[in-house]
Amino acid sequence: MSDKLIINAAITGCVLRKEHSRHLPVTIGEITECAMRVRDAGASIIHLHARREDETPSFDPRDYRDLAASVREACDDAIVCVSLSGRHVSDIATRAAALESHPEMASLTLGSMNFISGPSINSPETICELASRIYAAGAVPEMEAFEAGFIHYASYLIKKGVLRPPYYFNLLFGSLGSAPLDLTGLGHMVSLLPAGSTWAAGGLGAYQLDANVMAIAAGGHVRVGLEDNIHYDRDRTELADNVRFVKRIARIGSEMGRLPASPEEARQIIGLSAPSPAQSL
Amino acid sequence: MSDKLIINAAITGCVLRKEHSRHLPVTIGEITECAMRVRDAGASIIHLHARREDETPSFDPRDYRDLAASVREACDDAIVCVSLSGRHVSDIATRAAALESHPEMASLTLGSMNFISGPSINSPETICELASRIYAAGAVPEMEAFEAGFIHYASYLIKKGVLRPPYYFNLLFGSLGSAPLDLTGLGHMVSLLPAGSTWAAGGLGAYQLDANVMAIAAGGHVRVGLEDNIHYDRDRTELADNVRFVKRIARIGSEMGRLPASPEEARQIIGLSAPSPAQSL
Repeated sequence: MSDKLIINAAITGCVLRKEHSRHLPVTIGEITECAMRVRDAGASIIHLHARREDETPSFDPRDYRDLAASVREACDDAIVCVSLSGRHVSDIATRAAALESHPEMASLTLGSMNFISGPSINSPETICELASRIYAAGAVPEMEAFEAGFIHYASYLIKKGVLRPPYYFNLLFGSLGSAPLDLTGLGHMVSLLPAGSTWAAGGLGAYQLDANVMAIAAGGHVRVGLEDNIHYDRDRTELADNVRFVKRIARIGSEMGRLPASPEEARQIIGLSAPSPAQSL
Repeated sequence: MSDKLIINAAITGCVLRKEHSRHLPVTIGEITECAMRVRDAGASIIHLHARREDETPSFDPRDYRDLAASVREACDDAIVCVSLSGRHVSDIATRAAALESHPEMASLTLGSMNFISGPSINSPETICELASRIYAAGAVPEMEAFEAGFIHYASYLIKKGVLRPPYYFNLLFGSLGSAPLDLTGLGHMVSLLPAGSTWAAGGLGAYQLDANVMAIAAGGHVRVGLEDNIHYDRDRTELADNVRFVKRIARIGSEMGRLPASPEEARQIIGLSAPSPAQSL
């Protein structure tokens, strides 16, 4: 178990809008400012989604390039991870456009499932093709698992040579149509992870904090941020911002002897290579 | 799930001595002072063991009466729970002597197991007889489970009418010869609990904090204190005291929206009756 805690800050996502929370960063300027502040608070990975001016998700490679460059300039050592989410588009080239921003990591959802709003489809072919493009771009997949079977499928892809080390998994709980959060369910997913995996837990809404803290206690890491949860408190009465979320996790981790990992320490824990010149620009 | 967090402070035990930690309260004066301070820090249950002047465990009813009276006077609303541990004696009358102190709760270990120092034997007959004496003394058993089978046995005793509500369980992890701590193991034990149970998790040594925090995140409660762990940090370099332990748990609980339960709130959560005059004196 790694003592240091990797905080992966999912600060905006592609679903919520300012009408849901005024604290949601949406423009390049807002996302950059937020990235800098969560980095200062202990986040080592910044999980990015680009938005258009009207807040809808952007799949324009230029938007991702500008966003990643701006975030790197503001917090030069943070690990930039971009989303290849298929929630709004299914075309592989469109989903993979974010890879043109030279990220160190890119999200790869390992199966299909229902969100409350409808199915999220990632066919076996899509997963394999996105994995191949992620590696070709010099990035490492941030593997997203919403069910135990998603991890099982990753193990299959490892055997087939489609996926290769290092393995980093986000285990995501509490979405209505996928795995609910409990100790046994999280423990079961952890038990299925390929040897040498680094894992983090996250959760939707009120499950985010509980999933994060179970992971801290069990030697895992965390994904936290407004992408998954907009309320600070258990009763969901108070809007949160990303910095408060990251600071709370850093405080709880520190109480438990797990100080936030720096980006350099996070790279070492996960097994990421030193960033290439393109990834550092 | 109860939002408020019951902190059960196991402040001294019957095994460790001052040579292991200078912070261990042993005399009535020390235990009373400590009980008062952990109560102020958020503990609602004080788990007591009486000691002789030479620090060895006492089974003298007078020692328990004096100790319980002193603790009640110092922190008049705390729930007093006495140990009926069989680690040093096997004779039932001797083990049950602490019940003469009119506790609200008394420990009942639900099986036999190995501690690192040797077997801890609680035969089926002993468990039934101690349960009967606990109820006869007007107390509620604090059921201690070191393995899943201990909970299974409690369910059997419920069917047989030996045990009756309310049910309060301490799930204890990380002793070398019994259940190790992991998410799945704790989750499994929780899944076996009789309906309506209140549960807390604790652990030996470095497992104490992780077990406590998994429980907080999963809607359970905590048992914390020097009885089970003498070091504050994960690397076991710094001696702890009971007050620091309870304060840390109260801080983590509060970060997670689970403020410490008062003794009155703890009674309500567990389902304890209002203390009798003898239990309040």
